[in-house]
Amino acid sequence: MEKILLTHGSGGTLMHKLIDSLFMRELDNPILREKKDSAIVKIGKKSLAFTTDSYVVNPILFPGGDIGSLAVYGTVNDLAVCGAKPLFISLGMIIEEGLDRDLLERIVRSVSLAAKRSGVKVVTGDTKVVERGSCDKVFINTSGIGEICYPGLSVDKIKAGDSVLVSGTIGDHAISVLSKREGISFSSKVKSDSAPLNGLIARALKVSDKVKFMRDPTRGGVATTLNEMVTAGKFGIAIDEDRLPVANGVKAGCELLGFDPLYLACEGRVIIVVQKLHEDKVLRSMRSDPLGRKARVIGRVVKEFPGKVYLETVSGGRRIVGMLSGEQLPRIC
Amino acid sequence: MEKILLTHGSGGTLMHKLIDSLFMRELDNPILREKKDSAIVKIGKKSLAFTTDSYVVNPILFPGGDIGSLAVYGTVNDLAVCGAKPLFISLGMIIEEGLDRDLLERIVRSVSLAAKRSGVKVVTGDTKVVERGSCDKVFINTSGIGEICYPGLSVDKIKAGDSVLVSGTIGDHAISVLSKREGISFSSKVKSDSAPLNGLIARALKVSDKVKFMRDPTRGGVATTLNEMVTAGKFGIAIDEDRLPVANGVKAGCELLGFDPLYLACEGRVIIVVQKLHEDKVLRSMRSDPLGRKARVIGRVVKEFPGKVYLETVSGGRRIVGMLSGEQLPRIC
Repeated sequence: MEKILLTHGSGGTLMHKLIDSLFMRELDNPILREKKDSAIVKIGKKSLAFTTDSYVVNPILFPGGDIGSLAVYGTVNDLAVCGAKPLFISLGMIIEEGLDRDLLERIVRSVSLAAKRSGVKVVTGDTKVVERGSCDKVFINTSGIGEICYPGLSVDKIKAGDSVLVSGTIGDHAISVLSKREGISFSSKVKSDSAPLNGLIARALKVSDKVKFMRDPTRGGVATTLNEMVTAGKFGIAIDEDRLPVANGVKAGCELLGFDPLYLACEGRVIIVVQKLHEDKVLRSMRSDPLGRKARVIGRVVKEFPGKVYLETVSGGRRIVGMLSGEQLPRIC
Repeated sequence: MEKILLTHGSGGTLMHKLIDSLFMRELDNPILREKKDSAIVKIGKKSLAFTTDSYVVNPILFPGGDIGSLAVYGTVNDLAVCGAKPLFISLGMIIEEGLDRDLLERIVRSVSLAAKRSGVKVVTGDTKVVERGSCDKVFINTSGIGEICYPGLSVDKIKAGDSVLVSGTIGDHAISVLSKREGISFSSKVKSDSAPLNGLIARALKVSDKVKFMRDPTRGGVATTLNEMVTAGKFGIAIDEDRLPVANGVKAGCELLGFDPLYLACEGRVIIVVQKLHEDKVLRSMRSDPLGRKARVIGRVVKEFPGKVYLETVSGGRRIVGMLSGEQLPRIC
């Protein structure tokens, strides 16, 4: 009998297969079929973004964040990358019996601060407690509603020649969680990049009407996110290895542990595809935000290799970069 | 150091204390403060209902339902009792590594059927998988958005003299889950009442503009829900013990296990408070719905004992019925 594996939750190929072969098949409707970070729903004449995420990160406290702030920022970012202004979020907590009240307080305070920082209100919630051993400390679900301010962002608008930008160094979140979990420390301390991107994104969309598409590279990392963009098979994406922004601590962690930063989850980074003409404008706007200081062009949309993402390596070669297959890091978010 | 207990998730007094002393304090805002089953949020001129619930029911399959349909109906009902037409729901699943794929398929199909039956669309979702032993089979979060069609339902409108109605027998859900969990069977088989109430509620609101307030008596049961209504201390509620609709199997289960049906969770029942004048009209409307055949007046709003709920017993006495204290049944939903 087929069993569900950790890999089914990794964000990679097995998860995409599970989603297509089960969730999409059973729950099929035009909105779900879009497979955006948020559903775009119409109520009357209003277009809203609606999204959900459950957070099971282990450990629940890590350098640069915790499960509470992560749950808020993750949902805020899923709304923002769809061109929405995040407004309201829900907070569903599943708590393991025996959790320290102080720890719960710390997490709820973190939710509160993160909501204030992101400009959203927590308007509804739910608390469940399960017996010791039936969950691991605490799981959080946040769902969010935003108002669509910039309609029309769509992967269908992407064309060969467009530039691919990332707002900062990649993989910091994954390495921060992993180093804490495994008790490893690197010479350069790595902090999670977990942060709300709605401000940075709104500013980029204000300076340019040539932004085609955005997505935050969470589970599966930049490589998986770019592969999701090319699935329609109309174009390829070339990444310039030389330009990938990777912090020293993340490099060290990857070398030590055998990870590729391209597959590591970020929780406060966004990939923006913009028409070449507006590349500088958008880059400047991103860099003017403290969360985007290290924004860079990392690649471009190409006609060659449609449906593929490839790396132009430092040594001058080319290497196809597939979607994450197998599990690098369970419970990273 | 204070620890979180199972009772903190029971729906009773300890849960209310945790909510007030932690969640309300840290996350305070006017919408959250309303403490409705759904948050009522304004986006532009539109009033929307927004709600969330996590489901951790054990076992995940029980007579009359499963965690999938329960998760849909629970959220649909939380929207409907606030006068909203449920439209869109999200589906967040946390799955334990090793779960049978067939079981997952069964649950997702159940979500799909329940969504169709309720007239809502599942438009966004998330899947996480955690290691064996880090959660118990599967937990589901559903959040929902509805459009407010009947604004103005409010506990503040309730006045002495109003009638208190319930749409059917009480406690069926809790006894169904418990009998399955403990492997007990009663002479009369008890099925969960888990069902979508949006149709029944919309009809009741259509026939009468004198419906003051509604709530579905889930965790903590009818007793706890009525106690939530009287907290402002402006009126009391008298329940007529003689009129409480309790199925034979539930009676048997309660006698055997020492439960009071007033504290048992329902998942397909609604309590409606309506002006006495419209009692018959609303009752007829409810009974015309297959889910409301056994609707009854179970009590009335009174001036005496403000802030209290009391039972007028079969023997002619009076007994104060407090909010659930302590845990009757963990993981009932």
